[in-house]
Amino acid sequence: EDAEKLLESKKQADDGQSGGQFVLKCAKGTRDYDPFQMAIREGVFSVIISCFKRHGAVSISTPVFELKETLLGKYGEDQKLIYDLADQGGELLSLRYDLTVPFARYVAMNKIKTIKRYHIDRVYRRDQPRMTLGRYREFYQCDFDIAGEYDPMIPDAECVRIVYEILSQLDLGSFIIKVNHRNVLDGMFEACGVPPEKFRSICSSVDKLDKTEWEEVKKEMVEGKGLEEAVADKIGEYVKLSGHFELLEKLMSDMGLTAVASARAGLEDMKLLLHYCELFGVLDKVSFDLSLARGLDYYTGVIYEAILTGDATMKDGEVPAVGSVAGGGRYDGLVGMFDPKGQHVPCVGVSIGIERVFSILESRAKEAGGKGIRTVETQVMVASGQKNLLEQRMKVCTLLWNAGIKTEMLYKRNPKLLNQFQYSEREGVPLLVIVGEEETVKGGVKIRDTHTREEDFVEMAALVPELNKRLAECQHSERV
Amino acid sequence: EDAEKLLESKKQADDGQSGGQFVLKCAKGTRDYDPFQMAIREGVFSVIISCFKRHGAVSISTPVFELKETLLGKYGEDQKLIYDLADQGGELLSLRYDLTVPFARYVAMNKIKTIKRYHIDRVYRRDQPRMTLGRYREFYQCDFDIAGEYDPMIPDAECVRIVYEILSQLDLGSFIIKVNHRNVLDGMFEACGVPPEKFRSICSSVDKLDKTEWEEVKKEMVEGKGLEEAVADKIGEYVKLSGHFELLEKLMSDMGLTAVASARAGLEDMKLLLHYCELFGVLDKVSFDLSLARGLDYYTGVIYEAILTGDATMKDGEVPAVGSVAGGGRYDGLVGMFDPKGQHVPCVGVSIGIERVFSILESRAKEAGGKGIRTVETQVMVASGQKNLLEQRMKVCTLLWNAGIKTEMLYKRNPKLLNQFQYSEREGVPLLVIVGEEETVKGGVKIRDTHTREEDFVEMAALVPELNKRLAECQHSERV
Repeated sequence: EDAEKLLESKKQADDGQSGGQFVLKCAKGTRDYDPFQMAIREGVFSVIISCFKRHGAVSISTPVFELKETLLGKYGEDQKLIYDLADQGGELLSLRYDLTVPFARYVAMNKIKTIKRYHIDRVYRRDQPRMTLGRYREFYQCDFDIAGEYDPMIPDAECVRIVYEILSQLDLGSFIIKVNHRNVLDGMFEACGVPPEKFRSICSSVDKLDKTEWEEVKKEMVEGKGLEEAVADKIGEYVKLSGHFELLEKLMSDMGLTAVASARAGLEDMKLLLHYCELFGVLDKVSFDLSLARGLDYYTGVIYEAILTGDATMKDGEVPAVGSVAGGGRYDGLVGMFDPKGQHVPCVGVSIGIERVFSILESRAKEAGGKGIRTVETQVMVASGQKNLLEQRMKVCTLLWNAGIKTEMLYKRNPKLLNQFQYSEREGVPLLVIVGEEETVKGGVKIRDTHTREEDFVEMAALVPELNKRLAECQHSERV
Repeated sequence: EDAEKLLESKKQADDGQSGGQFVLKCAKGTRDYDPFQMAIREGVFSVIISCFKRHGAVSISTPVFELKETLLGKYGEDQKLIYDLADQGGELLSLRYDLTVPFARYVAMNKIKTIKRYHIDRVYRRDQPRMTLGRYREFYQCDFDIAGEYDPMIPDAECVRIVYEILSQLDLGSFIIKVNHRNVLDGMFEACGVPPEKFRSICSSVDKLDKTEWEEVKKEMVEGKGLEEAVADKIGEYVKLSGHFELLEKLMSDMGLTAVASARAGLEDMKLLLHYCELFGVLDKVSFDLSLARGLDYYTGVIYEAILTGDATMKDGEVPAVGSVAGGGRYDGLVGMFDPKGQHVPCVGVSIGIERVFSILESRAKEAGGKGIRTVETQVMVASGQKNLLEQRMKVCTLLWNAGIKTEMLYKRNPKLLNQFQYSEREGVPLLVIVGEEETVKGGVKIRDTHTREEDFVEMAALVPELNKRLAECQHSERV
């Protein structure tokens, strides 16, 4: 990690140097997307949005900043990572930290009782960035949430299905969706003898188990948080456990755990959830995992986290895919924090964290030499190899734009034919329309196929239909 | 205006009141988009992005904030409207004011020599909001820019074509694209006897002519900026002028103007621009208008502004469509301000300001009772009128999701059939799959057509093909 920090600070210093009189760089922890990255991003968003729409979600959008007080008291100790705007007179504002709190504010403000919505947008955390690991200060979240008073675990199971569909379709290799329940966690703490006032704090320690060895977490519990070692050891036994119905049965016959009423209720929820996951055809990727905790204060029921586990389909040199790419849970109290009468609207949702997904797909696409990724969608280049045909080219462009054909020409009076060919080949433009004196006399142009390099004369009146025919063929053979 | 401000402050107070212990509202000058507004927004973006792609643009993205110094010295006196982030340690940051300066920073930082890109994103101005007029502190810009050393006026004319295509396709009624040239403006000032040090300042006054009467602008020039009245009167004669080639001829024979070398060059540019606009088939909407100035410091050549002029197709009560919806121009010096060696990359671009477009389309859609605007794309509702069929419904949903069909079910164990019908009718879901005991025994389900209310039995194995067939028919008859 230190090496990485060093590398990044060196990189920043370099960026600064190249800026001469001033620093020519993006703000720390942020980045530009170049056209290649944007093409990948568009593909990822398209898969995700299709999935959200397939499940009947509407879309909403909220501003990038909120009143500061809207965000306060929602994120526990992570609150210190919130970006504030300068006080330039007027309201005190902060950049949003996630899309969940603005969603809850929106639901309360508009007195909404039921909504299933998605929201894809950027959020801001003044965290230590680890850009090489896909951890930024400005990053995208893709959220899907279901708000409303419904029968237990039905929307909760659909959230698992959503994560399953998206991770499958993005083709990221094998993955697992860990599920757990706040009530089961709290019941476990109670059964182990953790004092109630330490539940949240011990929960934060458990949350570190995905990145940290048990021994270290235990040390934090005992030495840092004053937990009895025997209690910590009991927790250590539980958090090893994961499985499906067989684990559920084991826990349901655990007298210590089932003596706690809320734990029993949590286990009933988990039983339903696993059953519904089976009906939704996703149980094979689901793991009821007692080590899953999740740090945010606002969760009240089921919690989720999806992990890429990496596998044989990964190529050498690919960014290690192991890590969390989605998370979420049930938060039945958050809307009530905003409602003037404290009226609750139960909510459950998942957030797909796609920066890591971008990193994986980007490095995979780069390895493939950018094959199959086009940054422009141009279908036809209107070209000429002779002089003084700019006006002719402009007229042909106009004709094609009017016909809805994606068309470009070089912005030169007399461009070299070779440059026009090279541009078309580099950018994957399948067809050229070549304007020439001879063809003009004959009332037409030539069509050149970039792939076969064959050229055919076509009369002007037949140009658009002929192009459309050929473009349809290209599309068919997946060359566009 | 005062009445409007009053209304808004009243509205804000109301919002505040309803929040009880705290203020439940969006930050001043910002707003949420509800699902209905998002559906409209998606349609508008789709038209605009299609146009940008039809012209071969790549897409890039930059962070929402930049180093403060990146934005300084680019916007003239409007610099005071920039939002700063609080100093929480580290770099001093500001929210972007437009997409043009970040683009120039991107081009310089990556040493790009040629690029044609679009960028659609939100920008921030700490201005007095006029939300009823579509003027916000957070708002979208849709930018298309061409950077590179090219032959004169070819990319400049394509920008006009872009604005023409977008405004035509959005079907906003009649519009006009005003064009002018910074050199012609400066030449005009010189010919009228404006001292050179007052060019930019007098230019700012001229810029107000779209909203302010000449007499008032003149008063500002004479009393506020100390211009001789005779000089102002001469300007007054010029800024009345607009037209096409006939105006160009008139100006080219204006001895005072053509005595200024840069004015002659500007007029030559305008001649080419009008000629190319004719070839691109857009001259009928273009007006060479000497009153067009544009306030931003960085323009160096052609400038544009598109205005909706309203017309007979507008309905009563519609938001007045008169106003600027696009603007832009040539800025050949901006990239050089970022390049350590001061190397210039000439640029020209346009920005579509779509908040006003949203307002118009939104009020039009509301007038039409929301007809034709769906906020969900659900194709099939999996329903049941009998008890204890939740598991059956879940299995059918799984089947349909696996087949890529947009499918919903209500999140109740035993929902009422009527609620399921009503949801489908309200949301325009064309088909229902009804699960029943009798049908289950027969190995199938019923398909119900929301429109005709006809129901047919279909065997489970034939369900997906039958739904796909019917959905294709619905799409054909434009009911989906």
